[in-house]
Amino acid sequence: MATKENGTDGKKTGRVIDGPTNPMVTPLLNDLYQFTMAYAYWKADKQSERSVFDLYFRKNPFGGEYTIFAGLEECIKFLANFNLTDEEIDFVRDSLPGCEEAFCDYLRGLDCSDIEVYAISEGSVVFPKVPLLRIEGPVAVVQLLETPFLNLINYASLVATNAARHRFVAGKSKLLLEFGARRAQGPDGAISASKYCYLGGFDATRHVSVLLVNVAAGKLFGIPLRGTHSHAFVSSFMSLDEIVDKALRSSDGKSNCEDFVTLVQTCLSKIQNSSSLCGIFSETNKSELAAFTSYALAFPSAFLALVDTYDVMKSGIPNFCAVALALNELGYKAVGIRLDSGDLAYLSTEARKFFCAIERELNVPDFGKMIITASNDLNEETVDALNKQGHEVDAFGIGTNLVTCYAQAALGCVFKLVEINNQPRIKLSEDVTKVSIPCKKRTYRLFGKEGYPLVDIMTGENEPPPKVGERLLCRHPFNESKRAYVVPQRVEELLKCYWRGNADEAREELEPLKEIRNRCIKQLENMRPDHMRRLNPTPYKVSVSAKLYDFIHFLWLNEAPVGELH
Amino acid sequence: MATKENGTDGKKTGRVIDGPTNPMVTPLLNDLYQFTMAYAYWKADKQSERSVFDLYFRKNPFGGEYTIFAGLEECIKFLANFNLTDEEIDFVRDSLPGCEEAFCDYLRGLDCSDIEVYAISEGSVVFPKVPLLRIEGPVAVVQLLETPFLNLINYASLVATNAARHRFVAGKSKLLLEFGARRAQGPDGAISASKYCYLGGFDATRHVSVLLVNVAAGKLFGIPLRGTHSHAFVSSFMSLDEIVDKALRSSDGKSNCEDFVTLVQTCLSKIQNSSSLCGIFSETNKSELAAFTSYALAFPSAFLALVDTYDVMKSGIPNFCAVALALNELGYKAVGIRLDSGDLAYLSTEARKFFCAIERELNVPDFGKMIITASNDLNEETVDALNKQGHEVDAFGIGTNLVTCYAQAALGCVFKLVEINNQPRIKLSEDVTKVSIPCKKRTYRLFGKEGYPLVDIMTGENEPPPKVGERLLCRHPFNESKRAYVVPQRVEELLKCYWRGNADEAREELEPLKEIRNRCIKQLENMRPDHMRRLNPTPYKVSVSAKLYDFIHFLWLNEAPVGELH
Repeated sequence: MATKENGTDGKKTGRVIDGPTNPMVTPLLNDLYQFTMAYAYWKADKQSERSVFDLYFRKNPFGGEYTIFAGLEECIKFLANFNLTDEEIDFVRDSLPGCEEAFCDYLRGLDCSDIEVYAISEGSVVFPKVPLLRIEGPVAVVQLLETPFLNLINYASLVATNAARHRFVAGKSKLLLEFGARRAQGPDGAISASKYCYLGGFDATRHVSVLLVNVAAGKLFGIPLRGTHSHAFVSSFMSLDEIVDKALRSSDGKSNCEDFVTLVQTCLSKIQNSSSLCGIFSETNKSELAAFTSYALAFPSAFLALVDTYDVMKSGIPNFCAVALALNELGYKAVGIRLDSGDLAYLSTEARKFFCAIERELNVPDFGKMIITASNDLNEETVDALNKQGHEVDAFGIGTNLVTCYAQAALGCVFKLVEINNQPRIKLSEDVTKVSIPCKKRTYRLFGKEGYPLVDIMTGENEPPPKVGERLLCRHPFNESKRAYVVPQRVEELLKCYWRGNADEAREELEPLKEIRNRCIKQLENMRPDHMRRLNPTPYKVSVSAKLYDFIHFLWLNEAPVGELH
Repeated sequence: MATKENGTDGKKTGRVIDGPTNPMVTPLLNDLYQFTMAYAYWKADKQSERSVFDLYFRKNPFGGEYTIFAGLEECIKFLANFNLTDEEIDFVRDSLPGCEEAFCDYLRGLDCSDIEVYAISEGSVVFPKVPLLRIEGPVAVVQLLETPFLNLINYASLVATNAARHRFVAGKSKLLLEFGARRAQGPDGAISASKYCYLGGFDATRHVSVLLVNVAAGKLFGIPLRGTHSHAFVSSFMSLDEIVDKALRSSDGKSNCEDFVTLVQTCLSKIQNSSSLCGIFSETNKSELAAFTSYALAFPSAFLALVDTYDVMKSGIPNFCAVALALNELGYKAVGIRLDSGDLAYLSTEARKFFCAIERELNVPDFGKMIITASNDLNEETVDALNKQGHEVDAFGIGTNLVTCYAQAALGCVFKLVEINNQPRIKLSEDVTKVSIPCKKRTYRLFGKEGYPLVDIMTGENEPPPKVGERLLCRHPFNESKRAYVVPQRVEELLKCYWRGNADEAREELEPLKEIRNRCIKQLENMRPDHMRRLNPTPYKVSVSAKLYDFIHFLWLNEAPVGELH
C-alpha cells in the first residue's frame, strides 16, 4: 500500500523527510496563544501530560455532502523538521510577558519525537465529525501543532474538494486546466492550489513554479503544464510587415518554407474564396493575424491561439484557421483555440462548425477535431449551464472560482482535545453541532453489498472492531432517535499511523502525488451517486458505537453545570 | 513625502532592497504563457520593444464603492531582485517545445534595469479603471511581471479593503484583532493577511510569525500581538488539586502569596455570598477554575480568559471574576474575557453587568471596565447587527471572514497593454466594461471645496495637467452622455515613480508599514460619507479628459472589424 521512497528492498530504513514546500512554514506559523498556553502548561508542570487531539471539520463545503482530505504530507514534513531556532526563541521570549529563561531552554529542546499522528490517507473522501487526524503527545507540543496543521489542511482540502466538484460537473472526458495563479490568495495560495487541484482531478496547470518547487530535492509535484498566449501578445503586433524572419522548416525537416507569412495569406484567401466559408467575415484584423503567424513561427508544433481579442467569428477564427492551414501544409498540426469571453456555448459551436467546414471543403483531415478551450470566470454553475445548453468545448481553464474557492472560501477544520492523562475530555457548546466527541477513538468505514461505503463509525480505542457479516448498531452521536443496524460486507480502518516519533517502524510512507490523486478519483467513483449529485445530495451517515454514544452522554451531563431558575 | 530608510541627510543613496517576504516569490511564480510569449517575442526579435502596461481593477469588492491599494512594496522587492537562476532556466527550456539555447542566454541576462514602474502610493483609496500601476519596459520582460504583480496585489488589496470595511462598521474606538491564521488560504495567506489587515486598520494579530518575518533583515512588520488561551487549555485541567506550585508574588514584589489557589476559592465564595451576585450560578466548573487559576499564575499581569468552554454565565464569568479578584488583591489587574460562542450581545451585556456589580458590591475600582473580547465567525454583517442590538464588546477577534475575504474571495485586477513602440493599443470586448483604456496616461485626483476628493481623471501623457481653479471637462470613458465640468480646489497626481531601473534618483522610497497604514486611515476619513456607507453607496466618479475620450473612440472604431449582415 505504501510506496517506498528510499530503499527498494521493502525494509523501511531511517529516512530524511524534506521540510514543508513553503519555507515560511515554521513553528512560528502559529497563533500567539499556542505559545502562551505552552508557557502556562510549563509553569504548571503539565507540559508533558499525554494528550490526544482530533482534527476534523463539522460541515461539508459548497453545499455538498463530501470533502476531499488533503494537506497531510505537508503536516508530516512540518512535524519531521519541527525545531525552534535561537532567533525564534528570542522572539517568543519577547512576546510573552514575564517569560522565564528556563522556558526558553525547554523550547530549545523541543521536537516531535514524542508525537504520534494517525490519519486518514490523503486524497480520501471524508465526512464531517470523523477525525482526519488524531494527534497524540505532550500537551504543550501538540498545541504548537494546532495552527500550522489547520492552516495546512483547511485550504488544501477545500481546494481539492472544489477541484473534484468541477471535475464531476465537467465530466471525465474533458481536459481541466487550473488558471488561477494571478487571483489566488497570495503566492502560496497559487502554488498549493495547483498541487491540490491536480489531486482533486484537474489535468494540468498553467502555473509554472509549482513544477519547480523542490526541484533541488528532486521532488517535483509532476503536474503537466499548459501554455498559450494572452491578449497583450495579440495587441502588441501592428501588421504582418513586422515579421522579419519568415522562414519555417517543415515538420519532417526535409523542406524549408522561405515565406511562411505569404503562405498564411494564401491560406486566408483560400478560406475567403470558399463559398461555404466566406460570408461570416470580410477583412480580419491584421495585427491579430501577425500575432498568430509570429506565434506559430515560434511554436509550430504547439500552436494554440487566443481568438477573442477583436472578434471571435469575424476575425479570430478565420485568422487562426489561415495559420493552422499554413502549418498543415508544412506537416504540423495546430493544437486549437482558446475563447476567453462571450457566449461560450454559441461561439464554441460556431467555431466547431467552421473547423468541420474547412475539413470538408478544403479536405484537411482532422481539422474539425481542433481543441477548443474555454476560460473566462468559469465555475461549477457555468460549466453545468454550458452542458445543458450544448457546447463544443474540449478543455476548461478555470481560475478565480477554483483557486479562491469563491463559492465558499474556507473550510472550518477544528482541533479538539479528546483525552488527557487517559481521561476523556469533552468541549460543550450551546450549539449541539459544536460539542466535541470525546475519547481516543478508532474509526471505520463500512461497505455494503453493492460495494458502496455505507457509514463511517467511531468507537472507543479498546472496543472490538466491526466484523464483516456481523450486525452492528450505528448511532448518531447526538440524536437519540437516529440509529441503524448495519451488516458490513467490508470494513476499512480509516486512521493509519503516519508519524511515531522518529521511529520508521509500522509507519505509512508518504506517497507520490499521482497515487494520492488516483485514490481520490477512485474513491469518488465508488461513492453512491445520490451522495454526489449537485442538487440535494443525500448526506452520508457518520455514527458512533452504542458504547461510545452512552459514554459521550454520561460525560456531557457530568460536565455541564446545572442552572438555577428563579 | 517619502521616507528615507537609509541615510538621514535627505540625499537618496544606492540602496539594497530586500527580496519579497515569501521566498517562493520568484520569476517562476508565473503562468507558463508568460514564458511562451517571451519566447515568441524573442523569436520575432520584438522582445525589447518598449511597451506600457496598466494594472487596474474593474469593480470594487464587497458591494462597496472603494478599494484600498496594497501589495506595492512586495512588487518592488520582487523587481529589485528579479533574476532567473540556471536551474530555473533549465526548467523553462524543458517546458517550451523546441526552445533554442540562445533564448536561455537571453533569459540569463534578464533583470529589471530597463523597467519603470509608476504607482499610486500604497494604502491609498482607489477606484475602478484608474491604473494602480503603470509598468514600462521591454515587452518580454514586462510580460514576465504580469502574473507575479497580479498575485501580489490582488489579495493584498482585497484583504486590506476587507479590513477597512470591518473597521468602518466596528467604529474607531473598538480594538480589532486578526484571528485568521488557521483558516487562511495557505501559509502565505495567513502571513500576508496579518500584514494587510493591519494596513487596513486592524490593531493587532494573534498570528506569531508575521512578526518574525524578515527579523534577520531587521525589518519587522511591527504589528502588535495579542494572545490568550483556547478551549483545549481549559479542558486539559481536571481539578484544582493539579496545581502544584501555588505561590504568587505580589505585583510590587513586596509580598508573596503562598497559596493563590485558596485565595481564588475565597474570592469565589465572596461572590457566591454576595446577595446581588449569587443567584445566576450554583457550582462552577472546577476544571475551568483550575485552568484559569493556572493561567493567572503564569501570566498574572496579562490574564485574559476564554469563558465559554462550559457555560458563560453559570461558570465562566464567576470563575474568571474569582481569579481576577484574587489577582487584584495582589495588586494585578486582569485584562478581561473572551466570548467565542452564543449570543454575543446578550452575553457581553450580562458579563458587563456582573463586572459592574462586583465593582460596586465588593468595592473594586475599575472592575467594571474589564475588556470584553468577542470572536466566533464575526463579519461585517454580524458586527453591524451587534451594534444595532446593543452590546458591551470592546474588542472583536475576526478570523475566517476577514482573511479569506469570505464575502468575495477575489479581486479582479488585470494587466493590459496600452502602448507599444509609442503606438497606443486597445483591447476590445463585447462587454464594454472590459474594453481597455489605451495610451500611456497620467492620472489626477481632483478635490472640491469641502476638501473631499471629487473625481479621478486620466489624461494622455502629454496633456497639460489640470489646474487649481480652472474649469475642466471630465468625461466617462465609455458613456457619451456622462460628463461634468469640475473646478478643482486641489489637484493631486496619483502615479509616482517607484522604480526606474537601478537608478535611485527621483524615485519614491518604500515606506514603513505604519506610514502606509496612516495614509489609509487618513484617506478613508477624508472620503465623502455617501461613498463609504454600507447600503447603496454613491459611486465615486472616474473620468477621462475630452481629448483622451475622443482618441479612445477613434481607436475603437479603427480596430473593431466591420461585420456583414446577410
